[in-house]
This record gives sequence, structure tokens and C-alpha cells, in this order.
Amino acid sequence: MKKGRLEAFTDAVIAIIMTILVLELPLPHGNTFHALLHEREKIIIYLVSFLTLVIYWNNHHHMFYIIHKVNGHVLWMNNLFLFFLSLFPFSTNWTGENLFSRDPQIFYGCIILGADVTYFFLVKLLIKENGHNSHVAELFGDSQKMKVTLCLNIIALFAGFILPILTMIVNIIMILLWVIPDRRVERVFKNRF
Amino acid sequence: MKKGRLEAFTDAVIAIIMTILVLELPLPHGNTFHALLHEREKIIIYLVSFLTLVIYWNNHHHMFYIIHKVNGHVLWMNNLFLFFLSLFPFSTNWTGENLFSRDPQIFYGCIILGADVTYFFLVKLLIKENGHNSHVAELFGDSQKMKVTLCLNIIALFAGFILPILTMIVNIIMILLWVIPDRRVERVFKNRF
Amino acid sequence: MKKGRLEAFTDAVIAIIMTILVLELPLPHGNTFHALLHEREKIIIYLVSFLTLVIYWNNHHHMFYIIHKVNGHVLWMNNLFLFFLSLFPFSTNWTGENLFSRDPQIFYGCIILGADVTYFFLVKLLIKENGHNSHVAELFGDSQKMKVTLCLNIIALFAGFILPILTMIVNIIMILLWVIPDRRVERVFKNRF
Amino acid sequence: MKKGRLEAFTDAVIAIIMTILVLELPLPHGNTFHALLHEREKIIIYLVSFLTLVIYWNNHHHMFYIIHKVNGHVLWMNNLFLFFLSLFPFSTNWTGENLFSRDPQIFYGCIILGADVTYFFLVKLLIKENGHNSHVAELFGDSQKMKVTLCLNIIALFAGFILPILTMIVNIIMILLWVIPDRRVERVFKNRF
Repeated sequence: MKKGRLEAFTDAVIAIIMTILVLELPLPHGNTFHALLHEREKIIIYLVSFLTLVIYWNNHHHMFYIIHKVNGHVLWMNNLFLFFLSLFPFSTNWTGENLFSRDPQIFYGCIILGADVTYFFLVKLLIKENGHNSHVAELFGDSQKMKVTLCLNIIALFAGFILPILTMIVNIIMILLWVIPDRRVERVFKNRF
Repeated sequence: MKKGRLEAFTDAVIAIIMTILVLELPLPHGNTFHALLHEREKIIIYLVSFLTLVIYWNNHHHMFYIIHKVNGHVLWMNNLFLFFLSLFPFSTNWTGENLFSRDPQIFYGCIILGADVTYFFLVKLLIKENGHNSHVAELFGDSQKMKVTLCLNIIALFAGFILPILTMIVNIIMILLWVIPDRRVERVFKNRF
Repeated sequence: MKKGRLEAFTDAVIAIIMTILVLELPLPHGNTFHALLHEREKIIIYLVSFLTLVIYWNNHHHMFYIIHKVNGHVLWMNNLFLFFLSLFPFSTNWTGENLFSRDPQIFYGCIILGADVTYFFLVKLLIKENGHNSHVAELFGDSQKMKVTLCLNIIALFAGFILPILTMIVNIIMILLWVIPDRRVERVFKNRF
Repeated sequence: MKKGRLEAFTDAVIAIIMTILVLELPLPHGNTFHALLHEREKIIIYLVSFLTLVIYWNNHHHMFYIIHKVNGHVLWMNNLFLFFLSLFPFSTNWTGENLFSRDPQIFYGCIILGADVTYFFLVKLLIKENGHNSHVAELFGDSQKMKVTLCLNIIALFAGFILPILTMIVNIIMILLWVIPDRRVERVFKNRF
């Protein structure tokens, strides 16, 4: 099956999630920057969630750019991936209210772990469908980076039991790992085509 | 007429419905998993609604993948189908507040019945437009499964009068019937092309 | 310029407006159909707004299906059209709260008038850009129906001063005029291609 | 890389932001135009934000219409641009509540400045990727107008310290500069193709 409609649907879902995040930002109680700063915890977590979603989209964009075929399993894994992303507004809101509490941080970490695990299997399914010799295997098959990510996800969860804010910090470090996924794809593309 | 814009519009509507469902999830009153569990009824019904919408999208995706032509009647039936889906956030919210009450469960069951009936007629219209010999007739024309679904929808409604939660349970069983619509389409595609 | 991105953007905007309408439906205060019926005015107006938006989309879909070129003026007129549509959730909400009050009904009527006027000019601009001999001129150039619509829009406004609910009733009659715009386009398409 | 998915994603994000703006408009407390006028400050700022977003979309549409290639840097700069746009509902809401206060106006001005700066760099990156001889360089490379815009952005911020409403007024003037970006592109297209 062609990938077009899966890409369009994923784009729509991620675009909406990213955008409705802002609906959870409360109106500051006052007309000063001081009142705005009062909401700083919510704003910080908003930035983190927005950035995380952008990075997921960027990576999704790059991966689907070089594959050609999808199948029913890919659709389901992608839907599961979107399910975890769909919980971002909820968990951003809860964590934003309780930035230094353990349970919301653990919950947030679990959502990211869920998204990463499903993304990991999505890559595996795409490699399987598109052949081990395809670009997707070459570029994304080396799952070293994804395994490191999953380890960091789990470390983030355990760290939360020591000091809740650590979950957030480890997650941010992990996110930064993925800011530049593009170069490799682009280099390959430049060299070959 | 070509199907492109109908697909894009349907994707957008379903993506938005799935995503705004989360806006109805209330912020837990507290920073513990205990507070989160307090909202468990709403979370369960959120999961059910999200899964149902994903399955509708998957089936819609597969069906439109193999047809080529749409007409005005198809557009209208699709719009009616989208109308029933658009009520999901509302009925999810109401049922989530009253998981064990009869009326919200019956209402939820009616929304699903409405969506299934319109989907049933959508398939019929697509078969008519695309010819009885086309793949759509071969794959989806055998409406055995859809008729079973509609029967289950109606059973779910009556069951609700005995014990409200039964509506939900029968609906979940019915949804599970549709988790794997993909295989048949994909097998046909693999064998022929 | 090609029409693709204008279509996609319009689809997204209309899809979102249609879907967020439901967010304005209040959670019934109770777990009975009686409580649901208490919100009947809001539900009726929801149905009217949803149907109106679907009809706008259907007509937009059909019109853009047969044209090929857009220009800057078309983009702007389309944006103005979308602006009036974007006010639907707001005016639906206000009118739903005050179904028998004059001012909300007049306001709702003005929004529809604004959408119809901009749609009227959108058709004119498309005819101009695509040539008077094109299908768009042949099919939509006969603006008899659109002029009747605009007259009904204005009658609806004046009727509101006599009895507010008349605005709604005249608008519903007007909407029904547009339920079947499809036939003509499809017949032409069938005959020629 | 091709531009298709970046365009689709941007369309979705801007469409959603424009549309959820309306969710921040409060239901008037009453059923009269007088009650509606009570919300006039929120309605005015809604109009300004909607118009600003439409103009960004129009310019984005025109610019991407004539370029062919994107790369990882373009994706990131576009995402940063979308981030600033995503704050529009929040800052529209805050400024609408406090139209004559300094801090919300400055904040609103900063969001627009952020969007303009990222748009400026987006143009630069697109020129770099698509070659200095391409249409994009010819049409948008002359950054005179963008530099004037950025100056006006900064003037708007300083003006806000004298009289808060000036920020809004200077921003509106600046927006009007961009209402007609289309002509030049269209003229070039008409002459050459």
C-alpha cells in the first residue's frame, strides 16, 4: 500500500496535538509579566512538549520520506504511536500543575517511553516491509541510537523516584539527542541522487 | 469524481475528533496516581472511543484505497458518517461521567449504531459507483460481517436496558471484530499486483 | 497558480470548525435523557451549523473540482470566506444559549450572509480567472440561485426583527436549497468525459 | 527533499491555530448586541490575530509555491516559525483581556517579532538551498521589505513603553504592508510561463 494517506493523517494528528497544547496554558491572573511568570512551570513544560512533538514529527517525516510501502501492521503501530502522542496535552497539563511531584513526572515519562517503544517497532516493521537492503535499513536499521533512547527513558523513570524533576531533565537530554536526525539522511540523499 | 479531497477531508475530521477527545479528560485533583485513578472511568471510555475512531479510520483508509470514483451520494453519506463521529467527544464525555447509567450508555450505543449504518450504506454506494466486479465488491460486498456488526449494535442497545454497562461491553466486542480488516485487502493486493 | 494548497487549507479549516463546534455542547447536568433534552436548543443549533458547514464544504469541493487556476484575489476572497465560517462556533454557542432572542439570531444571520456574499464573489473571481467559457461559468455562472440565496439571507435578517426564530427558519430553508448542488456538476461530467 | 509534507503540515498547524482562536472568545453575558459589544476588545484582537495568521499563510503559500527543495535546516526554521504562531491563541487571549496594558502588548509584539525573525531566516535558508538564481531569490531575496518589517516590529515594542496600544497600532500598520505580497509573484508567473 502507498504511504500518502498515513502521512497525511499523522501530520494532521501531530499538528492538532501540538496546537491544542496551548489551550491548556491558563490565562495569567493579571496584566503584568509578573503574572505571566507565575505560570512559568506550565510554560516550560509547554516548551518541552512542543519541542518533543516537533522532533517526533521531523523524524517521522524523514523516515517516511525514504520508504515506499506500508502495510496493515505499520498502520496499527503508527496508530498506537499516535495514541501515546495524543496523551501529551493531558500529561503536559498535569505535570505543568505539579512540576516537582513524582507521579505526574513518572506518568509523563511513561507516555514518552510508550511513544518511543512504538516508534522503535514502527521502524522495525518498516524495515521488514521495505527490505533489509533498502535505505531505511541502512539509515535507521542501526538501532543503537534508539536503544540508547529507550535506556534513557527507563533511567528517567527510575530517576523520578529519587528526585521527580530528574525525569524531566533526563527526558530533555534524550530529546536533544534527536534534534539532528536529518543530516545523515540528507547526506545519503546528496551522495546518491 | 476523484476521491482525493474526500479522503483528505475525512482524515482531517477524524484526526481532530480523536485529538480533541483528550480535551475532555479532566485535570486530576491532586498530584498522585491515586488522583489519576479517580478519573479511571473517563480514561477507560477515552481509550474505547480512541480505539473505535482508529478502527473507523483504518477501515475507511482500506476501503477508499481500492476504489477510484466517488459521487455526490457518496459525499453525502460520508458527511453523515462524519456527523455521527463528530458526536464522539460529547457522548464520550457524558458516558465517562456516568459509566453505569442507562441513558448515556444507550446514547453512546446510538452514536455507534448511526456511524455503522452510514458506513454500511457508504460501502453499498461505493460498490454501486465502482461496479459490482470491482475489488470493492469482492472485498467488502460480502456484508456478512457488517450485518453481524449492526445486529451487535442493536443487541448492545437492548442489553443496556438490562444492565447499562453491557452496552459498552457488547460495543467493545463488536469493535474487536474490526481490528483486523486489513489482512484480506493486503492479501488480495499481494496476489494480484 | 495551482489550486492544491488552497483546497487543502480550506479542508483543514472547515474540518476543524465543524469539529470544534462539539466542544461548545455542554455536558448534560445529569445522567438521563431528560437532562440531555434540557440542552435541546443547543443540540438543534449544533445540527443546523454542522449541516450548513457540510453544505459549504460540498459546494466548495464541487466548484474547485472543475476549476484549474487560482490567483491572489481568489486566495483573499477564500480567506475572507473562511473568516466568516470561523465565527460559526462562537455564534452557534451564543444563539444556542438564546434561541428565541433577536440579537443572537440577527448575528447568526449576518455571519451566514457574510459567508454567502464572499462565496458569491469567490465564484465570480473564479469565473474571471478560468475564462467565461470554462465549466465553472457554465455550471455556476448562472447566479440565479446564489442571488435567491442572498435575498433569503436578507429576508432572514428582517424577519428576525418580527420574530427572532424566523431568522433561523428562513436560513434553514435557504440551506436546504443547497443540499443538492451536486447533480448538475455530475451530470455534466458524465455526459462529457 | 520535496516540499509536500512540510506544506501540508504547515497548513494544518496554521489552520488549527486560526480556528481555535475562536474558542477563546467568551460567550457574551446576555442576549443583546450590548452584551456582545462588551467583548469588543476581545473581538478586535481576534480580528487582528486572524488577519495576521492569514497573511502569514498567504506569504508562506506564495513562497513555497516557487521553491522546489527543502532541507533539514528549513524544516527546523519552519518549526520554530510555527512555534511562535502556536502562541497566538494564548497571547491573543491575554492581550484581549488587557488591551491597554503594557506587558501583554509587549508580549504580543515579541511573538510577532519572533515569527517575523524566523520567517526572515526561513527565506534566507530557502534562497541558499534553491540557488541564488532561482525565482525565490529574485522575488524574495530583496529583503528590503522584510527589514522594514523587522524595524517596525522593534519600534512597536519600544512604542509600547510609551503607550501600550501603540504596539498594536504599529503592528497593524506592519501587517497591512503584507496584505498584497501576491502581485509580484503572479506577475512574474504570468510573464514567464
